[in-house]
Amino acid sequence: MTKIDSIPDAELVSLARRYQAVRDLTERLARPLSPEDQTIQSMADVSPTKWHRAHTTWFFETFLCPKLPSYEPFHPSFGYLFNSYYETVGPRHARPERGLLSRPSVSEITTYRRYVDEAMDRLIQTGLEQTTASLVELGIHHEQQHQELILMDIKHVLWTNPLRPSYFDSPATSPSSAPAPIEFIEQPGGLVEIGHQGSGFAFDNESPRHRVYIEPFAIADRTVTCREWLDFIADDGYQRPELWLSDGWRHVQQMNLTCPLYWSLIDGEWTIFTLAGPRKIDSGEPVCHVSYFEADAFARWAGARLPTEFEWEHAARGCPVSGQLLDLQVLHPRPAGDSSGPRGLYGDVWEWTSSAYLPYPGFRPGSGAVGEYNGKFMNAQQVLRGGCCATPLDHVRRTYRNFFPASASWAFSGVRLAADR
Amino acid sequence: MTKIDSIPDAELVSLARRYQAVRDLTERLARPLSPEDQTIQSMADVSPTKWHRAHTTWFFETFLCPKLPSYEPFHPSFGYLFNSYYETVGPRHARPERGLLSRPSVSEITTYRRYVDEAMDRLIQTGLEQTTASLVELGIHHEQQHQELILMDIKHVLWTNPLRPSYFDSPATSPSSAPAPIEFIEQPGGLVEIGHQGSGFAFDNESPRHRVYIEPFAIADRTVTCREWLDFIADDGYQRPELWLSDGWRHVQQMNLTCPLYWSLIDGEWTIFTLAGPRKIDSGEPVCHVSYFEADAFARWAGARLPTEFEWEHAARGCPVSGQLLDLQVLHPRPAGDSSGPRGLYGDVWEWTSSAYLPYPGFRPGSGAVGEYNGKFMNAQQVLRGGCCATPLDHVRRTYRNFFPASASWAFSGVRLAADR
Amino acid sequence: MTKIDSIPDAELVSLARRYQAVRDLTERLARPLSPEDQTIQSMADVSPTKWHRAHTTWFFETFLCPKLPSYEPFHPSFGYLFNSYYETVGPRHARPERGLLSRPSVSEITTYRRYVDEAMDRLIQTGLEQTTASLVELGIHHEQQHQELILMDIKHVLWTNPLRPSYFDSPATSPSSAPAPIEFIEQPGGLVEIGHQGSGFAFDNESPRHRVYIEPFAIADRTVTCREWLDFIADDGYQRPELWLSDGWRHVQQMNLTCPLYWSLIDGEWTIFTLAGPRKIDSGEPVCHVSYFEADAFARWAGARLPTEFEWEHAARGCPVSGQLLDLQVLHPRPAGDSSGPRGLYGDVWEWTSSAYLPYPGFRPGSGAVGEYNGKFMNAQQVLRGGCCATPLDHVRRTYRNFFPASASWAFSGVRLAADR
Amino acid sequence: MTKIDSIPDAELVSLARRYQAVRDLTERLARPLSPEDQTIQSMADVSPTKWHRAHTTWFFETFLCPKLPSYEPFHPSFGYLFNSYYETVGPRHARPERGLLSRPSVSEITTYRRYVDEAMDRLIQTGLEQTTASLVELGIHHEQQHQELILMDIKHVLWTNPLRPSYFDSPATSPSSAPAPIEFIEQPGGLVEIGHQGSGFAFDNESPRHRVYIEPFAIADRTVTCREWLDFIADDGYQRPELWLSDGWRHVQQMNLTCPLYWSLIDGEWTIFTLAGPRKIDSGEPVCHVSYFEADAFARWAGARLPTEFEWEHAARGCPVSGQLLDLQVLHPRPAGDSSGPRGLYGDVWEWTSSAYLPYPGFRPGSGAVGEYNGKFMNAQQVLRGGCCATPLDHVRRTYRNFFPASASWAFSGVRLAADR
Repeated sequence: MTKIDSIPDAELVSLARRYQAVRDLTERLARPLSPEDQTIQSMADVSPTKWHRAHTTWFFETFLCPKLPSYEPFHPSFGYLFNSYYETVGPRHARPERGLLSRPSVSEITTYRRYVDEAMDRLIQTGLEQTTASLVELGIHHEQQHQELILMDIKHVLWTNPLRPSYFDSPATSPSSAPAPIEFIEQPGGLVEIGHQGSGFAFDNESPRHRVYIEPFAIADRTVTCREWLDFIADDGYQRPELWLSDGWRHVQQMNLTCPLYWSLIDGEWTIFTLAGPRKIDSGEPVCHVSYFEADAFARWAGARLPTEFEWEHAARGCPVSGQLLDLQVLHPRPAGDSSGPRGLYGDVWEWTSSAYLPYPGFRPGSGAVGEYNGKFMNAQQVLRGGCCATPLDHVRRTYRNFFPASASWAFSGVRLAADR
Repeated sequence: MTKIDSIPDAELVSLARRYQAVRDLTERLARPLSPEDQTIQSMADVSPTKWHRAHTTWFFETFLCPKLPSYEPFHPSFGYLFNSYYETVGPRHARPERGLLSRPSVSEITTYRRYVDEAMDRLIQTGLEQTTASLVELGIHHEQQHQELILMDIKHVLWTNPLRPSYFDSPATSPSSAPAPIEFIEQPGGLVEIGHQGSGFAFDNESPRHRVYIEPFAIADRTVTCREWLDFIADDGYQRPELWLSDGWRHVQQMNLTCPLYWSLIDGEWTIFTLAGPRKIDSGEPVCHVSYFEADAFARWAGARLPTEFEWEHAARGCPVSGQLLDLQVLHPRPAGDSSGPRGLYGDVWEWTSSAYLPYPGFRPGSGAVGEYNGKFMNAQQVLRGGCCATPLDHVRRTYRNFFPASASWAFSGVRLAADR
Repeated sequence: MTKIDSIPDAELVSLARRYQAVRDLTERLARPLSPEDQTIQSMADVSPTKWHRAHTTWFFETFLCPKLPSYEPFHPSFGYLFNSYYETVGPRHARPERGLLSRPSVSEITTYRRYVDEAMDRLIQTGLEQTTASLVELGIHHEQQHQELILMDIKHVLWTNPLRPSYFDSPATSPSSAPAPIEFIEQPGGLVEIGHQGSGFAFDNESPRHRVYIEPFAIADRTVTCREWLDFIADDGYQRPELWLSDGWRHVQQMNLTCPLYWSLIDGEWTIFTLAGPRKIDSGEPVCHVSYFEADAFARWAGARLPTEFEWEHAARGCPVSGQLLDLQVLHPRPAGDSSGPRGLYGDVWEWTSSAYLPYPGFRPGSGAVGEYNGKFMNAQQVLRGGCCATPLDHVRRTYRNFFPASASWAFSGVRLAADR
Repeated sequence: MTKIDSIPDAELVSLARRYQAVRDLTERLARPLSPEDQTIQSMADVSPTKWHRAHTTWFFETFLCPKLPSYEPFHPSFGYLFNSYYETVGPRHARPERGLLSRPSVSEITTYRRYVDEAMDRLIQTGLEQTTASLVELGIHHEQQHQELILMDIKHVLWTNPLRPSYFDSPATSPSSAPAPIEFIEQPGGLVEIGHQGSGFAFDNESPRHRVYIEPFAIADRTVTCREWLDFIADDGYQRPELWLSDGWRHVQQMNLTCPLYWSLIDGEWTIFTLAGPRKIDSGEPVCHVSYFEADAFARWAGARLPTEFEWEHAARGCPVSGQLLDLQVLHPRPAGDSSGPRGLYGDVWEWTSSAYLPYPGFRPGSGAVGEYNGKFMNAQQVLRGGCCATPLDHVRRTYRNFFPASASWAFSGVRLAADR
């Protein structure tokens, strides 16, 4: 085979460097966690830290290492244990039982990661065809998704413990001052283009780029704060069925919800649980860990609505992809500043949209097993946009589509309002 | 108040006549059913026939009879027993327990219906303001929806009985000949108008009329037949996860699905349960009682996809609203004829679309309690279009949006394919 | 075959008469119930009235009618539909789905009963061998058990209905005066004989008669009243875990129990639901519809305990089998009179004992399918003794062992205390 | 207070030595287990090793350390986290969530144990009244129970892992030769004494000693082997409902049972999972990890029955308390030798009896919170006798009553047959 399909050396170097950087960051994120911490699964949706560390490694081992002629799998059972949901690849360990595995140990998984890293290093050194390089790229972005999941999941694990332990010590921050009232930014709408274009990386679910007709609308310049959420609570927001979708109201009643996840009313004072442990609520910061049902009910209460994902993407045109993302290492949303125009579109909290997670017209899933990456989940989920304080900076894009079921609230998810015009 | 807002006498006469006709039809549909039959609830989604007869009456009694100055409710507990889901109106009997009520008896409910009919007759005789007339209209269309539900639900009730009893005796039909292969009709798409317009009745969820941009596509000229579904089964359609949405595959495995609801393989021969009892499958007739998950998997297997609700509505422009609907009293889908152009758009089977059930831009629910009619269900359901063999003829419209969860299959639901162009 | 094994003609006549009387009584008990009433199953433990009427018929049809040379089963599916739990006989309809059958109708079951009665009449006329006569006898006693179950079950069915309808109109009774305080009757114990003896009918679980050593004890002269139960409630009996078995406390918390089944506190007044509908509690009448867990907790609270079934049987020696049983048609426990000695041992309420339901030493189940009648249930149930207000008079015996799981309370079950000496 | 109630110094020394020995053994048992291993809870019945280590410590800290004037609890939340079921002591962490706690870490629990050991050392040094010494004694026996539970539970934890890891390396043993056929040893029965007597330690549930009348019976000289169980399987033992209690048959069907827990048929060969990992079955060794339901069904299949706990205790009179117990460190049952007379009564496997776990006549639970130790569990469980290969040698007695629900099989439980005479 000639090298005609291979990617240039400079790109190889860049890819190898990015591979290593992402792999290292995962290890840094896991470092504060003991073997016991890394083993717990607090609910079926949550995976243990050590599982995330192994599964992201399995992705490279399964889809890339076999391209090395002499590659020997690290362990005959890891294909079974660390396959997440790839039916094409074979059977796998049941998701709700990921927390029942004391072995392999945390240190064996460290060894596993090194073993695969070494193989990947060899693979990249030998030069890569374009499709192989694309799979490496996909694996890198896949691992970045799991970096956010490690933080989301361990937050839930620690919260489940009555001791309410912390993941890290964050520097104390002074309470923020109340931000200016929400302003709605007018948007003329029209026939606009939606979806990924260009040569940069994007997931298959962001394509193809296509046209959508949007009616005139307005979008809030910032996300909803805890202060505003306290007003919703005080106005009996969680007790008024007329504010809620029918499924949402059932959810509120079954779970006895009276406030967002990680909030507690202790001796008359609202406390919030963060990755740095519990502390008093900061009323100026964005509300976080609300479900779609809560976001939707809040919007109805506020006389507004949630934006569609198309409105969000359109409104974000021209805004730089920057904000309070994982690289700032705060791991909690921070108050919006007071500049004018849309603020906090990226980082802080994922923003629920009113759009169901569906394929774009002409959508084609990736070929082979990675075709299961996104497409098969396009059912009964809602799209979120913009990334959060646990999203790696170079992972998010304007066209990026995150998705969760309407009842989920353990992601760093918040609310930006929109309105008809 | 002057009579300036009141509707003209001719309209009053027409309304009274339609009220009576719809009320009579409900009773005719219930007539073949014994008191025992009318009492059973075979699953939480199903309601007993006598409940449907009472609930449709409750709708008029609750929203209209109080406009009569001296109206006395028929029974102090019926407001509780027969409220379906109107939080605004008050508490109600739990849905999964509707089949635990032997009282009121079937004959008491007949009395209840007459009592309310008499009051409604008086109300209409006295003249109606426009908003009141609209509520009567809504009540009529509401009862028509329950006419279809009575048939869907009793089919499930009878099927649940190992005796497999029948609802009625239908004349024997000769097996149909195989229809011509599906042809795809090209549609140029573009910026089209979607939703209800004009002065006729429509539910709030069909408004407002708005523009949607549609890419070029093609739509099948007829729905999928049992013959084609047998091919899907023979090709291991129910055993191949790559054909299914992730939630759909879980559903198939949990329920051990191997064929559509109401199909049985008995001594090597496929039998189908109909409202006239079990009989051999007629391979030329439209497949019916498939879930969205099944419809979606079939489409993927066929190398096609489901249409969006916008594509369906657009493709149906210019087609007359006629077909094999409830008035033909067959109560089972019949094979499409062989004329050219789209066939069977109305009647036979509801057609699953790939569209999630969401509000149209600028949607406003009806005011008051009837605002709960549609809007609060706009979550985690899929839209179906076109009506079925159990839908009253004057009930369905091109813009009519039916909706069910993706796993539901006890509606008369089938599949029309579409394709990208 | 000679007639040497056959039973005498006089016994035949008696058997035929008793057969008919029992069959008639079942029909009289069902008569107040509409077709809808007879179809409902309010929980898995409850069976519809029409099922009881059919199942008792099935017992004769299955175990006896085939002895008639030319007997044709009434319906090919009734063996499946009305087998309760006889694995030996074949598969059967799932118990929790008995309330999903509108067909066969109530009137078809009346026809079924007549059909089998006629066959049984022919069978008995032709003369019976002893083993066949014993099976008829067993079928008669089996039907008597179901007479009580019909009343227990329909009470639960009617209670489940928010309308709280009644089964019959009972004559109003004046509230009873408070009975004298409980007296404990001393019993010396010793090595006593337990179990059935003699030639009369008894179930297999009452045999063999055997010796049991009983320590000296004392037994209450009457059962616990509602007044005494109100004291238990007032003393936080349902809130104090130290009074309860561990499983009982879990049951109390899961079910949020604060009083016996069928009690309601309405506007500060205790109301009780009876087969004649709701009425004020009569504090002098025996408490009824308490579970073993409740009975045991009450006894602990009272500084006493429940008797073993051996103590009960021993203490009842010499007491005539009479009391407030089904033949008095009150269908609710009545206050004990004030005579001295043990009162109310038979009738009113079944009395929970502290004995687990286990085989007597040397127990042999009946042979053939009826061996499944009792033995296979000897696990995780408690024995009750003495019959209740819904038990046929000629059905109960001193050695009769009834049994229910510790959490069950829909039987007419009450409490008699005992104490160590 | 004079020292008149205090225990003599020699007893103090002995108590202190035994305290230390038992505490040390717990730590030795946990030593092979990693922090991850010690954190897992594989089902609600199982507790993590670190929980056992903490809970046994909590027992001393809660019931004894407060007798030291200046004792400060180790951690304010450990009372909540490590209370098992003592309602009197206060609220506690939910049992099924014990595996969700990564903190306190395994090493913190080591520190906790040392902290309490030091306090206990001081307490014992200062001299103890009799009641306090009895509580220390109870705490020691309590910890011995948990030593067995640690082994039972970790076996289930490791089995749940598809890697099937081992707890320890046991020396390879050569397969045993088939033992001689079971012989039944005749027992005349009569009025015998049952229960604890004398001054040695016993749990409250072994008292009071009382008389029981036993009919003549026979008891097997050894327990049932794997070979005999294979015969049961081969004779369709798991497919024949007539062999099973009704609840047992439901259990078999719900769990799809076809063999004992920890057995697997791999490539046609029966494999058994032991604490030393999987290996071929040794057909001569006692069958282990069968439920009461299985034991009862096997006995019925064998034409025998299980002994009552009274028969067992009576038959064991005069037999020395010795056998294959924890001190031999095999941690798996071994074949019975071929000596005559009853063999293997102690050790190897706990032997299911047909006796429900009920209070002895005149039973009084211990006073105070430890009254919850046994009495409140006397419901819906079966008694087992004789100890097993994981029971500490000086923990078991002839009168010792172990108990588990009929469906439990993760204890080292086996079968000894009995028969009527």
